[in-house]
Amino acid sequence: MNYAPENSESAAAAVSAIRQMIETGKLPADGRLPTERELAAELGCGRRTVRRVLDTLEAEGLIWRKQGKGTFAGQPPDPTGALAAEIAPDADPLVVMEARVCIEPALAELCALRATGEDVQRLRKLAQRASHPMDADTAELWDGALHRAIARIAGNRVMLTAFALLDEVRMGADWQEQRHRARTPETMALYETQHRKIVDAIERRDGAAAFDAMRAHLEALSDNLRTSIRTLDE
Amino acid sequence: MNYAPENSESAAAAVSAIRQMIETGKLPADGRLPTERELAAELGCGRRTVRRVLDTLEAEGLIWRKQGKGTFAGQPPDPTGALAAEIAPDADPLVVMEARVCIEPALAELCALRATGEDVQRLRKLAQRASHPMDADTAELWDGALHRAIARIAGNRVMLTAFALLDEVRMGADWQEQRHRARTPETMALYETQHRKIVDAIERRDGAAAFDAMRAHLEALSDNLRTSIRTLDE
Repeated sequence: MNYAPENSESAAAAVSAIRQMIETGKLPADGRLPTERELAAELGCGRRTVRRVLDTLEAEGLIWRKQGKGTFAGQPPDPTGALAAEIAPDADPLVVMEARVCIEPALAELCALRATGEDVQRLRKLAQRASHPMDADTAELWDGALHRAIARIAGNRVMLTAFALLDEVRMGADWQEQRHRARTPETMALYETQHRKIVDAIERRDGAAAFDAMRAHLEALSDNLRTSIRTLDE
Repeated sequence: MNYAPENSESAAAAVSAIRQMIETGKLPADGRLPTERELAAELGCGRRTVRRVLDTLEAEGLIWRKQGKGTFAGQPPDPTGALAAEIAPDADPLVVMEARVCIEPALAELCALRATGEDVQRLRKLAQRASHPMDADTAELWDGALHRAIARIAGNRVMLTAFALLDEVRMGADWQEQRHRARTPETMALYETQHRKIVDAIERRDGAAAFDAMRAHLEALSDNLRTSIRTLDE
C-alpha cells in the first residue's frame, strides 16, 4: 500500500475519471463501481486518494456504499419507499385508515409496556402541540409526529417498518384536502381528548387501555373520514 | 412503422445484439434499455422484431418491463424482499412473534367480516391439513398457508403487504430448528383446537371472536417459543 502523501492533482483527475465512469454508464447493470484496489490500479493513483475521492462523490450523492457489498452509482435504494410506491396505487384513504386501525392499537399497547418517563413527557408535548395548531397543516404535522413517536417507542423493528410503510403510503398520497375537510372544531376537540386518553394509558403502563384508547381514536377518525367522503360524493 | 413480415434471421441477430448490450454492461446505471424505436434503428430491424425479441428475453428472465417506464436489464425488483432483507438482521424469533401478535388478530377480524362461504371452506381444509401433518416441515407449511390465507381474505392491500413483509422475514430466517423444537404432541393438539376456533369465529362472521381466538393462538405460540429458547439457553 502507498502511504506517501498524494497530491491533489491526482485526486482531481480521479474525481473526473470516476465521474465519467458513472455518467457514461460504463458500469454493470447493478451500478457497482470497481473495488478501491481496481480503481487505484486503473487510475494510476494510491488507494488513499481513491478513498478520499469516493468520500467526496458520496457526499455529493453521486455514489453510495453498502457495507460488505461495494460502492454503487446513484442513490441508495429506499426499500420502504419502493414498497410504498408499489402499493400506493391500490390504496385509498379508507384502506389506509383500516390498516391503521389494524396496526396502531397494538403499537400503543407495546408502547405502554416500554415507554420511559422521558418518552411519556415527549408524547405529552406532542399531543399538546397537535391540539393547539396554527392551521390544519400544522395540526396534521404534530398529529403525525405523535403517532410516529408511539410506533417508535413500541420498540419492535418489524412493526415500526410496517408502520413506516403505511405512513409513507399515507403521506405520499394526495389526500390532504379530504383529511382537512374531515377536521372541524368538534372533531379537533374530540381528538384532543382521545390523544390525552392514549397518553394517560401509556403513562399508567396500561397496555389494554392504550390499545382501546387508540382504537377508539382511529375509529372516530375513520368515521369522520367516511362522512366527509360521502359528503363529497353528494 | 414497418408492417412487412420480418425474417427470423434479423430476429436472431437482434437477440444476440441486445444480449450483448446487457452482458457487457453498456447500459445506464439503472439498467434501462433503449426504447423499441431506438433499438429498431440501432439494430436495423423493424419494431415488430424488436418487440418479439424483447418478449423472448423477458421470458428468459434477462429483462423486465415496467409499465410506462421502459425495459430494464435483470430481474424486476422485489420491494417486499428488499425491505425484509433490510430488517431481517434486527429481527429475532421473539420480535417477529411479537409483530405477529400485533398484526394477525386484526387480520382475522377483517377476514371474519369479508370471508365468503368458499373462503371458509378453504380455511377449514388448510386447518385440517395443518393438524394431520406427516412431519414438522409439512405442519409448518400448512400452518403458514392457513395464516397467509386469512391475511389475504382480510382484503386490505396495505395490511397484506405488512403481513407479507413479516412472513418473508420469518421464512427467510434460519429459525426452523427453534420452531420445530417448540412443537410437541401437546402443543400440536392445542394449535389444532385454536385453529378450529379461529375458523369457527370467521364462519360465524364474528370479528371480535376471530380477533380473540387468533390472539390466544399467537400468544400460545409465543409462550412455547419463549420456553424453547430458554431451554436452549440452559
